[in-house]
Amino acid sequence: MSTISTLSNHQVRLASRPVGLPTRANWSFTTEPVAEPGPGGVLVKTLYLSLDPAMRGWMNEGKSYIPPVEIGAVMRAGGVGKVIASQNPAFAVRDYVSAGLDVQEYCLVPQEQLKRSGMFKIDPSAGLTTWLNVLGMPGMTGYFGLLEVGLPKAGETVVVSGAAGAVGQTVGQIAKLKGCRVVGIAGGKAKCDWVVNELGFDACIDYKNSDVRAGLKEHCPKGVDIYFDNVGGEILDMVLAKITRGARIIICGAISQYNNTTPVKGPANYLSLLVNRARMEGIVVFDYADRYHVGIAEMAAYLKAGTMKSREDVVVGLENFPEALLKLFNGENFGKLVLQVAKE
Amino acid sequence: MSTISTLSNHQVRLASRPVGLPTRANWSFTTEPVAEPGPGGVLVKTLYLSLDPAMRGWMNEGKSYIPPVEIGAVMRAGGVGKVIASQNPAFAVRDYVSAGLDVQEYCLVPQEQLKRSGMFKIDPSAGLTTWLNVLGMPGMTGYFGLLEVGLPKAGETVVVSGAAGAVGQTVGQIAKLKGCRVVGIAGGKAKCDWVVNELGFDACIDYKNSDVRAGLKEHCPKGVDIYFDNVGGEILDMVLAKITRGARIIICGAISQYNNTTPVKGPANYLSLLVNRARMEGIVVFDYADRYHVGIAEMAAYLKAGTMKSREDVVVGLENFPEALLKLFNGENFGKLVLQVAKE
Repeated sequence: MSTISTLSNHQVRLASRPVGLPTRANWSFTTEPVAEPGPGGVLVKTLYLSLDPAMRGWMNEGKSYIPPVEIGAVMRAGGVGKVIASQNPAFAVRDYVSAGLDVQEYCLVPQEQLKRSGMFKIDPSAGLTTWLNVLGMPGMTGYFGLLEVGLPKAGETVVVSGAAGAVGQTVGQIAKLKGCRVVGIAGGKAKCDWVVNELGFDACIDYKNSDVRAGLKEHCPKGVDIYFDNVGGEILDMVLAKITRGARIIICGAISQYNNTTPVKGPANYLSLLVNRARMEGIVVFDYADRYHVGIAEMAAYLKAGTMKSREDVVVGLENFPEALLKLFNGENFGKLVLQVAKE
Repeated sequence: MSTISTLSNHQVRLASRPVGLPTRANWSFTTEPVAEPGPGGVLVKTLYLSLDPAMRGWMNEGKSYIPPVEIGAVMRAGGVGKVIASQNPAFAVRDYVSAGLDVQEYCLVPQEQLKRSGMFKIDPSAGLTTWLNVLGMPGMTGYFGLLEVGLPKAGETVVVSGAAGAVGQTVGQIAKLKGCRVVGIAGGKAKCDWVVNELGFDACIDYKNSDVRAGLKEHCPKGVDIYFDNVGGEILDMVLAKITRGARIIICGAISQYNNTTPVKGPANYLSLLVNRARMEGIVVFDYADRYHVGIAEMAAYLKAGTMKSREDVVVGLENFPEALLKLFNGENFGKLVLQVAKE
């Protein structure tokens, strides 16, 4: 291994706030020297970064559930990496960790920021990218969102949009394990086939090539008891028209609306909540941080038993970050989108 | 009292389904002889009928929480009346009752429909119209909606739209009794003054003559923890922009949208539910029917103690039903709207 002082850290920074889809002009690329950690600090070499729809929100000005990324700051991202220098007894050189590493090759985490970075050691045998997917934020979002907000009961019908995405694949697989009928919504035949044949969903509606309304009617003959919504827009309205009495709608995201340059389209069918005494509730995964270990343990057991799968779509190269991110918004990613920044 | 056989029953029937606001052409007026009740049946003389925003929904074709009123049928309405003939030991002549009486002067309820009509004896000393207001469906809607869906805690800020209406006045008064800060939204200075000065709300925003956004900012400095929504539309969106983390929005109605000839306007700010981990949930009062007696007992105690008020807006004359109903949609009614069909 080279000595720390000879390393350069390539970084991707937010250069300007995008209007609509982010372009390469919204990013700047910088190079900095890498510093040794101070007392209690840890230096991590980034291996994989998680690319998520929520990133689009962090690029906007204004209050949300976390502050926006400042102009000029390294773009925020979670990732997995390897400790290459440590002044902290909790982390040893060669440990694999998951943490907020941001879009850069090396992340120096001073002692006072360790907790905020969420850094914890991971078992690489589960697969490093799995820790950004089923065992990571998306997995925890699906786990706590479905189980604690959705409250699924065996025999109920669960619909999940973005079914082949990171959160969607987790939600659907957990719902199947809990005895529900599961109907996915995804874009394209390949994703739909994978969701049904590999993940064991009961059906998957191809929103790009078929009529979603007709698909819901066909595959949810008893209506929709739980809808886990990652997309918003027209599909949310179509599902609202099919919910059952006492239905639960988990609002996890609205990827169809994130790059709008016009106002967000509100769900015109929201009065279906009244007619059906139904509930629509938002979820932010960070609220469950003190219980991630519970979710991770359960998901890891499923993975080990082979009753759950984790699929990632890997793009290679930090320099490809701007284009890689866009795959989320045109629906090109197949599985959880991750950026490989370095080989181990 | 005249003998039953000499009486005529004037009725208001749904002649056609309205597009937009109902007009007189949507109604027909019929007269029928009055029949003696058969074994187990009860004949009631209508005194007051409840006019409610929900009636507009019942006039539309299509599935809702109850079936629509059929074309040619007597319009559905709850009311209070006096038993004038009975073949049922549970109801004696001269008893006052609350029941589904429909828009007509006399209601013959056969034994097999007694339960469905919801008929029960009432104590006239509380005021007959009070049984259509605070002690009736609107009161129960406010009581169960606020307490069981809203889950108010002392010190929280509760906003209620349609604050001077039947449900709104109940919600606000209960919320005050439970120790909340209560901000109403109503149309016009007179209603706002009444809500604050007579009912004891902390503030009331006049949506007809002031800026609701500014009013919410001024009167809800800590944000909105509970919003009891009777109106929908833009006001729902404005409140969504002000909700706190974990807020509850009770969807009771959307009077601003009921006469739309264009699609319902969905709440564009619904993603505030995500950011704030908040919940939007519909309520239909009929679900609590087996516990109305609990709500009625509590409300009756407040009324007796003078800690709750009940205000009704009385329109006289069955023949004025078509125009009276419209008062709900232009906001003309001041207090719970009732139609006096006969004097006692």
